[in-house]
Amino acid sequence: MTSSPPRTLCAQLPAAEPASTVRLQGWVHRRRELAALTFLVLRDRTGLAQVVVKDTDLVVPPEETTVEVVGTATANPQAPGGLEVTDPAITALTEPAATPPVELWRPALNVSLPTLLDHAPVTWRHPAQKARWQLAAASLRGFRETLDAAGFTEIHTPKFVESATESGANVFCVDYFGRPAYLAQSPQFYKQQMVGVFERVYEVGPVFRAEPHDTVRHLAEYVSLDAELGFVEDHRDVLRVLREVLAGMVASVHEHASAAVGLAGADVPVVPEEIPVLHFRDALALVGAPADEPDLAPEHERAIGAWAKAEHGSDFVAVEGYPMAKRPFYTHPWSRDGAEEARWSNSFDLLFRGLELVTGGQRLHRPSAYDAAIRARGEDPAAYAAYLQAFEHGMPPHGGFAIGLERWTGRLVEAANVREVTLFPRDLHRLTP
Amino acid sequence: MTSSPPRTLCAQLPAAEPASTVRLQGWVHRRRELAALTFLVLRDRTGLAQVVVKDTDLVVPPEETTVEVVGTATANPQAPGGLEVTDPAITALTEPAATPPVELWRPALNVSLPTLLDHAPVTWRHPAQKARWQLAAASLRGFRETLDAAGFTEIHTPKFVESATESGANVFCVDYFGRPAYLAQSPQFYKQQMVGVFERVYEVGPVFRAEPHDTVRHLAEYVSLDAELGFVEDHRDVLRVLREVLAGMVASVHEHASAAVGLAGADVPVVPEEIPVLHFRDALALVGAPADEPDLAPEHERAIGAWAKAEHGSDFVAVEGYPMAKRPFYTHPWSRDGAEEARWSNSFDLLFRGLELVTGGQRLHRPSAYDAAIRARGEDPAAYAAYLQAFEHGMPPHGGFAIGLERWTGRLVEAANVREVTLFPRDLHRLTP
Repeated sequence: MTSSPPRTLCAQLPAAEPASTVRLQGWVHRRRELAALTFLVLRDRTGLAQVVVKDTDLVVPPEETTVEVVGTATANPQAPGGLEVTDPAITALTEPAATPPVELWRPALNVSLPTLLDHAPVTWRHPAQKARWQLAAASLRGFRETLDAAGFTEIHTPKFVESATESGANVFCVDYFGRPAYLAQSPQFYKQQMVGVFERVYEVGPVFRAEPHDTVRHLAEYVSLDAELGFVEDHRDVLRVLREVLAGMVASVHEHASAAVGLAGADVPVVPEEIPVLHFRDALALVGAPADEPDLAPEHERAIGAWAKAEHGSDFVAVEGYPMAKRPFYTHPWSRDGAEEARWSNSFDLLFRGLELVTGGQRLHRPSAYDAAIRARGEDPAAYAAYLQAFEHGMPPHGGFAIGLERWTGRLVEAANVREVTLFPRDLHRLTP
Repeated sequence: MTSSPPRTLCAQLPAAEPASTVRLQGWVHRRRELAALTFLVLRDRTGLAQVVVKDTDLVVPPEETTVEVVGTATANPQAPGGLEVTDPAITALTEPAATPPVELWRPALNVSLPTLLDHAPVTWRHPAQKARWQLAAASLRGFRETLDAAGFTEIHTPKFVESATESGANVFCVDYFGRPAYLAQSPQFYKQQMVGVFERVYEVGPVFRAEPHDTVRHLAEYVSLDAELGFVEDHRDVLRVLREVLAGMVASVHEHASAAVGLAGADVPVVPEEIPVLHFRDALALVGAPADEPDLAPEHERAIGAWAKAEHGSDFVAVEGYPMAKRPFYTHPWSRDGAEEARWSNSFDLLFRGLELVTGGQRLHRPSAYDAAIRARGEDPAAYAAYLQAFEHGMPPHGGFAIGLERWTGRLVEAANVREVTLFPRDLHRLTP
């Protein structure tokens, strides 16, 4: 490699001085050999650039080989951005690449799901596929920036937990220095305890679910975007913060991944100033389900999503008040504007285009309420002693939510399967690559 | 709770209009009962505020109880910030808090390590302890902001891996749907593969090490700040990015956690424009170790740290060229300025105040080099097939590094034990709280 001139990124090429010498580095995205010349399309992290090779003795390495190209920036109205590189010297930076399992240079990546996943290190290189993850990365950035600005503190809590109780059903068991430990299904208990310290906290990290069902929306490991905040009036305060977070994620996608929106064909939503809210009871009535139905079926969620779109022009709708019987023990019962109802809860699901994206709500905060709730489920509060410390020593009314990253990105690009937007998915059957 | 006036945060109180009614929420940090009045010091996420209770019938709840205080903002030159709250109405938001295991209102948190850790949900509330994590959170923010600005893409890679080979020694084994899986010791293989996609990537997440040693600097789970970048000349390019990242972390600490620096008594370093670099061979000579010594002992690291401080005024020093025999198989052998030496490597350790903080370097990128390196260790390249895909299909010269979050924060505050700066440490003996 020569050390001068400095590297020009593909996206910077259109701004290069015509007739100047430029140095590009990247992958051979496409090699097209015509009778009198060869077109080399170079790909780097910023995009593509066209290199014209007229010297018939010059060997252009096969597609996906990494190369350095030093040549002349030359105006050509037909080239992308109006500039191409001519008279190149090409240096391969590695051995000639093996033929990829799919043609990465074709505009669309038409492959079966197993091919996509088995060859993930290579298939993610396709610009349209890569763009899907760029939407995820920009969303993560928007999540954090919104919460940082709102006085939240980032936390990292342990993934090893002592008891399966702590972690919930479908837990993974680990050999922890000769005794069993479990992998956390969520940072729920820890983020609540940290509200006692920082008032407002968030965590982005992996969660683990030994999910025995092989569906298009479940993974054994996924990225959870968790937030929790103290001194709330009720779950509506939590929902307001969630709205800000979603708006921040969308704004970040537009700001930091605008090219990816086009490449991935993403349908980025507008987050309304106020997210429409339906009580669970009214949601059942709306979809014509029996009033004693304990949960919403996927077709109910779709119908409610369609209703929100038609009535409110919103891709989002919150269903609040889910029956206490279907919510975890730490859920706060319905209490709002002075009215209390033991049957319903101060919790919600947020549906995005008819699919559950977020679960959230207000939690219990009084130690006596925890004691009663745990006993009511036939369990012993002593099993939760470490967790209950926080409440005995003073906790504020609080609540929070968790967004599944892959579900979010999956809906943005209307992926048929959440695995399509996961870098290296893990499920019942898949543990590699 | 009354819904008006809006909440005033403790840090906002000094800016309140004197004689106006203010509403504060937080924890009873300190209750001091004098003959004629009671001082209540309230703590919220932004700091402390003083409330003066002259009404002897008014019950001030015990320390750590969460309360709402509505009262009059009153100028008092003796009060912190010049304003205090008088004539308060106090509403407890939970039951009277149990007496904390330690007195959180005392300026210093003088407790034994077991007490600190056993009661973590409560001991983290102490302002000086809380400040330690605020340094960590601000550092994370600086890490990401620096890399975002430099064209890196955030990734999240799987923590479940198929083989122990992939993960290294001292791995945790999980029951993965009836077959064994292992917890990733680092995102090394995955971040390299993603260089093939995004060129520049970073990941912040947990890594897992079944570390059988009970030392002050090892944990079974810690937060790793990983970065990896393509199209490097050699490991010095990686070191330059690392310098920018450390400078960004320090800048973020000053910008976002300036109060925490004082509270935690942190000694925040100045990151020099150029980090001094010593070759491993010269490092051995400097500390008077035999020339065939394969690694640096902790006392050697301390001596090198002292040398860097004395000679270069730097808290940081990089030791490059570690013997290949002591580095992982993917390490690139010494190759710099045209000179190649098979004995040494293009890798480095960064010492911060005489303690290893970061390991980094250039990796192999040619498929033939991987094949040879794996065979040279007596292993079968077929065991690495998924990983090797990326190299067969074209990878650039690349390298990266990993910073241990807890070691970084530990050094900032000169903690005797890395557990003191970990929210909920996990080790050989500890799995709770």
